[in-house]
Amino acid sequence: MLKVIKIGGNIVDKPEKLDRFLTDFARLEGPKILIHGGGKVATAISRALGIETRMIEGRRVTDAETLKVVTMVYAGLVNKTIVSKLNAAGCPAVGLSGADGMFIRSDRRSPVPVDYGFVGDPRQVNTALATSLLEMGYTVVAAPITCDETGSLLNTNADTVAQAIAVGMAQAATTEEVELVYCFEKRGVLSNVEDENSVIPTIDRTSFAQLRAEGVVADGMLPKLENAFKAIDSGVSRVVICSAEQIACEGYGGTTVKA
Amino acid sequence: MLKVIKIGGNIVDKPEKLDRFLTDFARLEGPKILIHGGGKVATAISRALGIETRMIEGRRVTDAETLKVVTMVYAGLVNKTIVSKLNAAGCPAVGLSGADGMFIRSDRRSPVPVDYGFVGDPRQVNTALATSLLEMGYTVVAAPITCDETGSLLNTNADTVAQAIAVGMAQAATTEEVELVYCFEKRGVLSNVEDENSVIPTIDRTSFAQLRAEGVVADGMLPKLENAFKAIDSGVSRVVICSAEQIACEGYGGTTVKA
Repeated sequence: MLKVIKIGGNIVDKPEKLDRFLTDFARLEGPKILIHGGGKVATAISRALGIETRMIEGRRVTDAETLKVVTMVYAGLVNKTIVSKLNAAGCPAVGLSGADGMFIRSDRRSPVPVDYGFVGDPRQVNTALATSLLEMGYTVVAAPITCDETGSLLNTNADTVAQAIAVGMAQAATTEEVELVYCFEKRGVLSNVEDENSVIPTIDRTSFAQLRAEGVVADGMLPKLENAFKAIDSGVSRVVICSAEQIACEGYGGTTVKA
Repeated sequence: MLKVIKIGGNIVDKPEKLDRFLTDFARLEGPKILIHGGGKVATAISRALGIETRMIEGRRVTDAETLKVVTMVYAGLVNKTIVSKLNAAGCPAVGLSGADGMFIRSDRRSPVPVDYGFVGDPRQVNTALATSLLEMGYTVVAAPITCDETGSLLNTNADTVAQAIAVGMAQAATTEEVELVYCFEKRGVLSNVEDENSVIPTIDRTSFAQLRAEGVVADGMLPKLENAFKAIDSGVSRVVICSAEQIACEGYGGTTVKA
């Protein structure tokens, strides 16, 4: 079983939480790929550089200057910090952006209806490169910067990158089974966002439609769940949404997404 | 013959010069590793962030904040820009920092006699990782950020990183022969720094001692030549110091360093 695990930007931003997560993650057995965000760090660096951060529906508008910042922060600072900490924790790791070996080739998103700038949607994953690194015993650490054929780097949603990698690996002939785990600051999908103990243990398409209609599931959780269903529909064996603190627990707790 | 080519920060800083170099570099046949600097970009980003740049004898003093900047700029912005341009030019490339798979493990330099801060001297190169990527058909693009066993990232001189990689690959049983090429803004080692046509075609230890005593070779050229001799003494077949504009020319022109 290949583990594809995504760690959110709210954890990456807090050194103690990140260290705890990486210590637990390093101990997980078997082949694994970690995808990280870094949005909060990018916003802080943008501010320090005097570059305004514009968000539309929770997504960063990426002009040329912002693209430089996210490339520096995601593929440089955050990726190499995580890689060096994993190495030191006895988990040999290699960091990749989507540009490395065209690991994640994407299409620049149409400027209509909303112009997000240099933003890409993944089209193809170089599973051969990831498989080779995994077979050499490395954990792959992926930054959510992708690229198109023209050599343009593109900022890409990390949840979507994780889904694309999980699906790509699941469809590659060489991989057995893949599980996709979204780790963030909450304990799972909550029926009451104020109550950490209201984790919904399983969600399928029927209950998702209902939760969405009732407004229980909204905002950032909607695209995360849509990515989860896309993964399940495309050959990924299991998708879990859980707390970064539960990564060491059997089954991760949290919410399991079912077809 | 494996080519290990270093491109200096003065070229990396100029988009047209860098593009021209990368177009030529992409066409070079056979396995190749590119090591890049990026000091001028790092200085500009430091300034924009209000971080003072301190240099001692041409080397950057790297405090904790400066380490973040060079990690962002070298391993992020510059490395991924080069990788995506090479991919687009038909030269599949994978970028590595020294932290990735512990590609370049280094020792933090002693703070005595000069405290350079988070600066490392290479100790060991993971030639197996580079060899695997080369065998998969990738060009390796190395950023001059290394790491020690404790997971600390360390800023490292790019000329020295290039020498360490060339020597490591030359000593690895799997590599045939290695040539090391230092590309920069001048046409080679000049007998008169004011005259671009005064390239010294070959330098050996005897002529180096003489040129040094006469003050013809000084400043940044001294450590470059010391790295060159170390490479020649440690199994590298050929070292050339030449202009980035000559990389497409047979034999590169420039100055050849001989034992």
